[in-house]
Amino acid sequence: MTVVPGFTGGTLDRADHLRHDPTALAATIDWRARLLRLDGLIPAIADDARLGWTTLTDAPDEAELILLGIGDGRAHFAALLPGLRHDDLPAMRNPALMGALASLAPGEAATYAAARSLIDWHLRHGFCARCGTATTLFRAGWGRSCPQCGAEHFPRVDPVVIMIAEHDGRALLGRGKGWPPGRYSALAGFLEPGESVEEAVAREIHEEAGVRIRDVRYIASQPWPFPSQLMMACVATADDDTLTIDANELEDAIWVPRDEVRRILAGEDGAFIAPPPYAIAHTLLTVWAAG
Amino acid sequence: MTVVPGFTGGTLDRADHLRHDPTALAATIDWRARLLRLDGLIPAIADDARLGWTTLTDAPDEAELILLGIGDGRAHFAALLPGLRHDDLPAMRNPALMGALASLAPGEAATYAAARSLIDWHLRHGFCARCGTATTLFRAGWGRSCPQCGAEHFPRVDPVVIMIAEHDGRALLGRGKGWPPGRYSALAGFLEPGESVEEAVAREIHEEAGVRIRDVRYIASQPWPFPSQLMMACVATADDDTLTIDANELEDAIWVPRDEVRRILAGEDGAFIAPPPYAIAHTLLTVWAAG
Ligand SMILES: [Zn+2]
Ligand SMILES: [Zn+2]
Repeated sequence: MTVVPGFTGGTLDRADHLRHDPTALAATIDWRARLLRLDGLIPAIADDARLGWTTLTDAPDEAELILLGIGDGRAHFAALLPGLRHDDLPAMRNPALMGALASLAPGEAATYAAARSLIDWHLRHGFCARCGTATTLFRAGWGRSCPQCGAEHFPRVDPVVIMIAEHDGRALLGRGKGWPPGRYSALAGFLEPGESVEEAVAREIHEEAGVRIRDVRYIASQPWPFPSQLMMACVATADDDTLTIDANELEDAIWVPRDEVRRILAGEDGAFIAPPPYAIAHTLLTVWAAG
Repeated sequence: MTVVPGFTGGTLDRADHLRHDPTALAATIDWRARLLRLDGLIPAIADDARLGWTTLTDAPDEAELILLGIGDGRAHFAALLPGLRHDDLPAMRNPALMGALASLAPGEAATYAAARSLIDWHLRHGFCARCGTATTLFRAGWGRSCPQCGAEHFPRVDPVVIMIAEHDGRALLGRGKGWPPGRYSALAGFLEPGESVEEAVAREIHEEAGVRIRDVRYIASQPWPFPSQLMMACVATADDDTLTIDANELEDAIWVPRDEVRRILAGEDGAFIAPPPYAIAHTLLTVWAAG
């Protein structure tokens, strides 16, 4: 089964070599270059479900440019605006942002994801974690360097495992506190230093639901730009369906038969409301439901 | 084929709940608790290929404790020593360290990996990236918090893709600059914000060797504690074997037939010297060679 998770399929060439070549990079900064249109990090959507772009003349003089990549022979940038603070960023649940995500063509959301993760990272990493000095942007926006101690810092990507335990043809789904009514999804958690994907899957399912699993199968991955996770979706087998829910992590957890998951993904009412299509939980449920 | 990558299989229960419960954590800090024996981050190896442990009385008064987990009913800690600097840490190529890694039983190396990654992270993250203030350890060593702006910082894990492109029964291997003579391995690179595992695999193989691939298959993962990567091993299919090597990334790249990879892994001489068994490149080659 071929799956295309949300936030994947971007078409820009990241052009890593330009990040290391200030002269070549400068040569791309011209009237042909494109600047991503953002309203406080909410993307402007064009009529054709594509991202809106403008020219570099629309960037304030003090803006710093982040090279998103090359497409159609043009450099594509996002602007890091002077004075923008992390607290100004729209939360993931901002209705305008969710509407934009729902309407963007798949590859376009991938470009937005990279831009959003990078801008967010710059806003939360203005100082050197090693010595406390204010750092400066380098490598075309793909790093920050410290003028005091020389440390180089690179954008962070946090691996997260997201998984279904299956038992006797049913999938284990949970809901977090404060989620929209009826919403259930795959369990998920941050992978920690010193563990593999497979070990993180087993630990998280046991911590959150008290279920022991075996035979972890990797399904697919996606970047998640709130702020910058790598979501790795897996299925695992549980030999016992007894649940011991950690109330700090989950409000509820349920086992849902394959047929019912299939019907809900097809749009029918059922035991839960499915996650949105751009979330890899949706992809994971789709693959699992297909058997 | 069941594979057990290096640095996996640790047996301690990470006991996440203790990180959030200072009273319960304090109750584990007693004469029964165990302290990991480290000589400048090189583990002490016991006769039975297990890690060496001592009691908390051997920790200096000013040491801060990192909870590695619970095993045999006892809390297991690593000590963050006062005055230890990041520059003091042994590099991965330190002969004593490599010897220790080669002799440790598999699950023991996993415990060491978590300890090493965490200590290294603390030493490089003493200041708040958001405001520049000195931070303090919290959550039993699994985070640092900022007394000035309230930001909470958590240990970093950097996802890395490591992969074989295959073409006509041959695997693409490369060697980096400064590697030991004859050593070749799978290509590898850091996954970036805004891309999936599958996209990072395609980008890295194209950047480093000029080869386009399709059909990425995930094989296995491992933590890599130098300093804290998550290695995700994949195989992908190349339709063309023409190489265009990026000299900044690779010194050489070669296509090696499956039979020859199999013979080399079995200990015979051949076109390259295999990576060490605790590296997931070894696991990946083993799985690929088995067909
Ligand atoms: Zn610094
Ligand atoms: Zn701070």
